[in-house]
Amino acid sequence: MGSTIGNNFVVTTFGESHGLNVGAVIDGCPAMLELNEGDIQPQLDRRRPGQSALSTPRDEKDQVRIVSGVENGLTLGTPICMLVDNKDQRPGDYKEMSNVPRPSHADFTYKEKYGVMAASGGGRASARETIGRVVAGAVAEKVLAALHGISITAWVSSVQDIIMPDIDLLDISRNLVDKTVVRCPDVDTAQLMEARIASVLDDGDSVGGVVTCVCQGVPTGWGEPIFDKLEASLAKAMLSIPAAKGFEIGSGFAGTLLRGSEHNDMYVMKKYGLGTVTNNSGGIQGGISNGEPIIFRVAFKPVATISLPQDTVDYDGKPVVFEAKGRHDPCVLPRAVPIVESMAALVLADLC
Amino acid sequence: MGSTIGNNFVVTTFGESHGLNVGAVIDGCPAMLELNEGDIQPQLDRRRPGQSALSTPRDEKDQVRIVSGVENGLTLGTPICMLVDNKDQRPGDYKEMSNVPRPSHADFTYKEKYGVMAASGGGRASARETIGRVVAGAVAEKVLAALHGISITAWVSSVQDIIMPDIDLLDISRNLVDKTVVRCPDVDTAQLMEARIASVLDDGDSVGGVVTCVCQGVPTGWGEPIFDKLEASLAKAMLSIPAAKGFEIGSGFAGTLLRGSEHNDMYVMKKYGLGTVTNNSGGIQGGISNGEPIIFRVAFKPVATISLPQDTVDYDGKPVVFEAKGRHDPCVLPRAVPIVESMAALVLADLC
Amino acid sequence: MGSTIGNNFVVTTFGESHGLNVGAVIDGCPAMLELNEGDIQPQLDRRRPGQSALSTPRDEKDQVRIVSGVENGLTLGTPICMLVDNKDQRPGDYKEMSNVPRPSHADFTYKEKYGVMAASGGGRASARETIGRVVAGAVAEKVLAALHGISITAWVSSVQDIIMPDIDLLDISRNLVDKTVVRCPDVDTAQLMEARIASVLDDGDSVGGVVTCVCQGVPTGWGEPIFDKLEASLAKAMLSIPAAKGFEIGSGFAGTLLRGSEHNDMYVMKKYGLGTVTNNSGGIQGGISNGEPIIFRVAFKPVATISLPQDTVDYDGKPVVFEAKGRHDPCVLPRAVPIVESMAALVLADLC
Amino acid sequence: MGSTIGNNFVVTTFGESHGLNVGAVIDGCPAMLELNEGDIQPQLDRRRPGQSALSTPRDEKDQVRIVSGVENGLTLGTPICMLVDNKDQRPGDYKEMSNVPRPSHADFTYKEKYGVMAASGGGRASARETIGRVVAGAVAEKVLAALHGISITAWVSSVQDIIMPDIDLLDISRNLVDKTVVRCPDVDTAQLMEARIASVLDDGDSVGGVVTCVCQGVPTGWGEPIFDKLEASLAKAMLSIPAAKGFEIGSGFAGTLLRGSEHNDMYVMKKYGLGTVTNNSGGIQGGISNGEPIIFRVAFKPVATISLPQDTVDYDGKPVVFEAKGRHDPCVLPRAVPIVESMAALVLADLC
Repeated sequence: MGSTIGNNFVVTTFGESHGLNVGAVIDGCPAMLELNEGDIQPQLDRRRPGQSALSTPRDEKDQVRIVSGVENGLTLGTPICMLVDNKDQRPGDYKEMSNVPRPSHADFTYKEKYGVMAASGGGRASARETIGRVVAGAVAEKVLAALHGISITAWVSSVQDIIMPDIDLLDISRNLVDKTVVRCPDVDTAQLMEARIASVLDDGDSVGGVVTCVCQGVPTGWGEPIFDKLEASLAKAMLSIPAAKGFEIGSGFAGTLLRGSEHNDMYVMKKYGLGTVTNNSGGIQGGISNGEPIIFRVAFKPVATISLPQDTVDYDGKPVVFEAKGRHDPCVLPRAVPIVESMAALVLADLC
Repeated sequence: MGSTIGNNFVVTTFGESHGLNVGAVIDGCPAMLELNEGDIQPQLDRRRPGQSALSTPRDEKDQVRIVSGVENGLTLGTPICMLVDNKDQRPGDYKEMSNVPRPSHADFTYKEKYGVMAASGGGRASARETIGRVVAGAVAEKVLAALHGISITAWVSSVQDIIMPDIDLLDISRNLVDKTVVRCPDVDTAQLMEARIASVLDDGDSVGGVVTCVCQGVPTGWGEPIFDKLEASLAKAMLSIPAAKGFEIGSGFAGTLLRGSEHNDMYVMKKYGLGTVTNNSGGIQGGISNGEPIIFRVAFKPVATISLPQDTVDYDGKPVVFEAKGRHDPCVLPRAVPIVESMAALVLADLC
Repeated sequence: MGSTIGNNFVVTTFGESHGLNVGAVIDGCPAMLELNEGDIQPQLDRRRPGQSALSTPRDEKDQVRIVSGVENGLTLGTPICMLVDNKDQRPGDYKEMSNVPRPSHADFTYKEKYGVMAASGGGRASARETIGRVVAGAVAEKVLAALHGISITAWVSSVQDIIMPDIDLLDISRNLVDKTVVRCPDVDTAQLMEARIASVLDDGDSVGGVVTCVCQGVPTGWGEPIFDKLEASLAKAMLSIPAAKGFEIGSGFAGTLLRGSEHNDMYVMKKYGLGTVTNNSGGIQGGISNGEPIIFRVAFKPVATISLPQDTVDYDGKPVVFEAKGRHDPCVLPRAVPIVESMAALVLADLC
Repeated sequence: MGSTIGNNFVVTTFGESHGLNVGAVIDGCPAMLELNEGDIQPQLDRRRPGQSALSTPRDEKDQVRIVSGVENGLTLGTPICMLVDNKDQRPGDYKEMSNVPRPSHADFTYKEKYGVMAASGGGRASARETIGRVVAGAVAEKVLAALHGISITAWVSSVQDIIMPDIDLLDISRNLVDKTVVRCPDVDTAQLMEARIASVLDDGDSVGGVVTCVCQGVPTGWGEPIFDKLEASLAKAMLSIPAAKGFEIGSGFAGTLLRGSEHNDMYVMKKYGLGTVTNNSGGIQGGISNGEPIIFRVAFKPVATISLPQDTVDYDGKPVVFEAKGRHDPCVLPRAVPIVESMAALVLADLC
């Protein structure tokens, strides 16, 4: 259970890291929408490892294949199943781990829950699980753009203590984000981040950071009150991403330092109707979009898999020194950017 | 829509601030559990306004009434409906607002979504909506305690920049929390917080802060992978609370400053089985509980309703100086404590 | 679990036969709809026992009370909670049954499932459970009529082997149906039915029959393909009614006797667009409404509670002669009519 | 929407008749269950066309492929995706239909709902859609047999007015059912049915009939009260099968002819606990299984596609004589047998 998200734009993902396929099925995509693999592949390429020296050398040339729900380049309104082959299967890499639960990984909890775990590579707890999110998210983005002119852009706003200075969030485009391999739109900050990641990689260690995301063009009135507030659904979607540890909307934790008189967003008449002068609310009030940009931030922990030896115990409690042999990113942040965008797209597409 | 939470322990809340009743229905509560109003009333009393000089003088002596699902003090396994009367109805208080959307409130977004809004007091966006959460949460806590020995304790860990020093989280009981009216278990910090809130109240302003929550006794294996990760469900539940702006599990945003070698939780054999030395994971790995305490924090913005005049516009865009006349808390944090506990209980009860 | 129906117009019912209240909560009712108790009470009166000599003398003057979701006679778009008091509580009537599972009742299965059962009267398996369906159904009918001009009419088409002759289904109105206490629109047949029921009542026995229902004005395109076909949702809703044993749409079981060349519904151009000459499909093709009237039939078994002595065994397997002492209808059909209409309304309101 | 069934054993099917793949994803299958393609293929072979002279000559050698959720022959508890290739694609066969909605098919309603329809062969309204049901149902049957010893057997009990005589339902095995190509376990009746179908095929016409199904070994206490009664869920599942027009549980429509004193199932002590002497309830009381065999019947209309010319109109209302050119069964009943079994398995697996 747990592999399905959404009530109207319903996405189910499937696939272990080292099985035949990973993929997703979307039920509820509107009919008559132009769609082909070319709409999906670019975002999948942004997610793929091996894009730069900062990432794992595992070279996964993931290609998406639409096997249902589209005919003659048009969606039919029926379930869209998308498949990606698992080509680069090297289960041998993971053999040494079999009796040791990797620290801060899901090995132990999966074994407790299921009594069994994919013998190789993490199964559904592997990073390859996110392929299903990204291919479905790319379709969701297409729907949002085509029907509502909504755009979603995320970027790396901090790596450890290297924090991007404030710039106008609305000036940031995906092109700008992709100008640096670390996906930070401020070039100076990006250089510092890249140096930090390279240094950490040398050390056999890893680092975390924060991704910021802005959704523009969301109409007023999206989201439900009480338990299905829009910010609540976004929080769930973001915390469902592997390695995510925190979520904040608008002013977030920093907002707790302000007084109400500083924090309240005053109304003002704008071209298209009522808007707010500031946006501490992050585009949502009472769980419902107010027409301002939706802005949120997601915290990612440092990658759990590191080359440094770790003093832990095996499943029987016997002390061992654990050294991971696999191929791993020292920092997931650059590749998390399209995943954050995809999850935001899935949440919004479910509401339109 | 949006007034239902849960798939197995399914809770639906209802009721406007100034209608006849507020309440909740629970479907999926196990049969044969001892339950009566006395199990629910204490938590409801902790939520109620007017508990101290820090809170609104509106004196709501909310009494819960179980009208179905229980017979002879035992649950029947059938839906439990609980009602609380709305006694203190003074719609006149809110009249001046009718043509002005209150800044950082849900007036504007509700009107955009529904075309109508409860003429008085905020309707479902009122704080009284949380009564349904608390009465249902109290039943959930009873289930969790009876069937699994799980306990949940939350407290105010910061008000603006007044931050409680680190103490052993597991030593904090509800009794200790309730020793101070601000519900901060560190007495010195509590005094500072109370002074701050009193001062802000004098100014006609408001403040926010952070609530920390610990769930102890959750067995391993709870939660689902991928989209329904336990931390994701908690994040959604917490962000659904009025005024919540952020959520973090375990190390949270602070964890982004660490390296993997500092952040990873090493395994160790404990009395009852494998555990971890540190708990940066916050008791959850890969979306599934690992047997360690579940620890998370929720950011609450400063209350939107303040007595200070605010320069805003009415629905027609005409500039107005808005001054709220109603009765309002300068700080929701103390009363948010039982709400956070209730939402945590609803999430966990849904998994057992 | 199981007390909720619908995904968009979501109804949860609650209440045991002899608790404080029975009722329902609707989440998802559109805002800005005129609604008051007067819209609901008539259908509730049609459901109530004691309407005629054919029915139980238990005189339940059920009055519905709307306690949330409506203000100044307009729906708010928020959950509508409706309550009906249980006034006529006589648990003593049922005492003799405590150690004997009543034949063809749910006593045994509830006890197996929950380990406990409402000590009196059947709990949720009582006929009073249907009050929640009817009050919610009345709101659904109001929505369907106001937004789409849809009308729903059901009637008793057979009692045992007394079968109403074919008349034009579309001529049958609720007024016509209510002209006879047995709710059969053909007066001659109604007289035969009433005589049969009276005779069966004298014998201390009971009878079943069939209710036919027609929904007019449903637009084309309602319903989903595959698992959520409109006829499938109707089938589920109807089989969820106490004592229902069968469902058929359009030609139903009789259609199995025909050849395809006799059964197929040919298209023809009508005023408003394409329609069909015959309606063996019952208004639905491939799970989706085609604009023709939706016609279905529901089989109800003879009431399980009879006065005649029955040779059965108690929970320990000891043979007993069971004689029911309570107050019971010899035939549920007349009172099932508004329940069938209500369930049809809930299914349709969920799709609009 | 509508391509998902179940809350715990959640199945989503996908695939058009003439796309690349049809298939299904199961989320919620228990871990540690032995499973491979050999468990699924036999039921898929029973569904496939071209099994006998009674069926369409379209030779679909459908082979199932498990692409996720299983490793080393064991289920992982993660989503199981199964694919079947569409090999025999001849869109040309269907070309003549493009401007004529086929009588009693879903062409018209799909076009009304989606504005577009698969240009060839019926898209999701094609019989190939049922492949997803059957491969998922085969896994469900494996779960039910392995964990609970439940077995499910269906057969053709009538074709038009040729009705199988009463025999002890519990003596009927799948082997016996498969002894005749028409899947009627009474050989004499089977011969009559086969002759009828052959004759109808010669006429270019089609016939319908009834499938009866028995589920043995279902424990007491399965199913939920009120809206999710077990018989209600079965009714929905069965009415979701293409061409199904009716459902009855236990005594069904025939039960409406009896008196309560004839219809009630008396209790008796059996080896394993309380049981009933008769089984008019069909193994379910109050929506919950009582331990007796679950027995139900499903009515299937005559196949809509016939070779005989039909006087209908095109989408513009212009009269046309429609003659279907494709390859079609004169009677779906024999191939419906594994589909009915599969849907029953999906309903039951969702409850265990």
